[in-house]
Amino acid sequence: MIRRDDLGNGYTIYQDTDAFCFGMDAVLLAHFSPLSEGERVLDLCTGNGIVPILMAADLKKAGRKALINGLEIQEAACGLAGRSVRENGLEDTISIVQGDIKEASDLFGKDAFSFISCNPPYMPGGHGLINEANAKTIARHEVLCTLEDIIAQSAKLLRMRGRFVMIHRPFRLAEMFTLMCRYGIEPKRVRMVYPYLNKEPNLVLVEGVRGGRKGLRMEPPLIVYREDGSYTEELLRIYGMTEEREKT
Amino acid sequence: MIRRDDLGNGYTIYQDTDAFCFGMDAVLLAHFSPLSEGERVLDLCTGNGIVPILMAADLKKAGRKALINGLEIQEAACGLAGRSVRENGLEDTISIVQGDIKEASDLFGKDAFSFISCNPPYMPGGHGLINEANAKTIARHEVLCTLEDIIAQSAKLLRMRGRFVMIHRPFRLAEMFTLMCRYGIEPKRVRMVYPYLNKEPNLVLVEGVRGGRKGLRMEPPLIVYREDGSYTEELLRIYGMTEEREKT
Repeated sequence: MIRRDDLGNGYTIYQDTDAFCFGMDAVLLAHFSPLSEGERVLDLCTGNGIVPILMAADLKKAGRKALINGLEIQEAACGLAGRSVRENGLEDTISIVQGDIKEASDLFGKDAFSFISCNPPYMPGGHGLINEANAKTIARHEVLCTLEDIIAQSAKLLRMRGRFVMIHRPFRLAEMFTLMCRYGIEPKRVRMVYPYLNKEPNLVLVEGVRGGRKGLRMEPPLIVYREDGSYTEELLRIYGMTEEREKT
Repeated sequence: MIRRDDLGNGYTIYQDTDAFCFGMDAVLLAHFSPLSEGERVLDLCTGNGIVPILMAADLKKAGRKALINGLEIQEAACGLAGRSVRENGLEDTISIVQGDIKEASDLFGKDAFSFISCNPPYMPGGHGLINEANAKTIARHEVLCTLEDIIAQSAKLLRMRGRFVMIHRPFRLAEMFTLMCRYGIEPKRVRMVYPYLNKEPNLVLVEGVRGGRKGLRMEPPLIVYREDGSYTEELLRIYGMTEEREKT
């Protein structure tokens, strides 16, 4: 079912509830590393375009302009993303492109971007699933692209000193670091996301810099829920919800 | 000045206050991954022997036996470590060996250990300091061994499936993961240590397994201090201090 959701930031998004609806990971990724004026951005695995649309809302709030390309392999998701971009009047900021990540540097050219973001499929393997894969499987499993595909292509697509940001599951962190270092994207900033203060982290945000110097900055923990199950102040702030509460 | 400190676990330790006194990092490392019965252990950069002595206390409490070798390059630290071992009557459990980590696999032989621990010098570089280096510099800077020396040697010294545990600064985490993967020690378990709930982590505990499968488990955050500056319950437990408080 196609659903139209209000993002609470002035924009809306079309989502197919049978395929993929965005979660907290997309929100955390979009706000992890604010875009500068004039930045050239590529969002890989963009799906229904949620990350570019959230970035566009932040740009508008900051009074900045940037160009954001969203690359997605699945036709139906591209269609939804394009529809959301048009409905929000974001055609000057966001371009949705249908294509294969493994050919992205041929598509866009080398050194074309100052910033690449990616909320990739988290589960490894899945190549055996290619024939029976539906939209949900493709969004969750590495059926059509691997972590290595993403990082190898990003290293080509990014100009020197360009930033690469990704959200992933912590169990893939050693692989991420190893691949990033292998392809010349130095991990520079990491934030662990813990659902509760006394629980294992279930997400990790990573920022790398192409050609960056060695040395990683680990940030304070991001705790999602208070003990009583309500959002922490920081999560409310990221979701833009403290502001809403102050208004009412 | 040589000082004799009571460890509060039935053992004492000799420390040279002009050279190096152990800190929280040694305590966290010693308790991070409990030893099994009959384990063959090597503690690298053992200094005054604090990590082997804390491990010996845990073994005694658990009613287990293991053999722990402590390797240290500096003669004076070896002397202190040996003195503490004898004073505690731990000669059957701990052997202190003076030697260079870069030759450790020649010294002990390949596949000799089921468990290697290391609390290394944290600061990179320092090779330029070799001539003027004093005991403090050697303990803190990579004057006499690098992270790569430690991991490369550990990969030779460990038997397959053997465990490697290390405490380090988070800014070296990408390097650690990359080197561990390169030398076949898969990172399996990581715990970030945050001084306060809202601060950046200043230590990270890592456990790897030689020849282990891919896939990392990130553990709940270890928070050291409460907002009021007193230790958290978990830290008191690690230091064996809750028990003391219950007794009094």
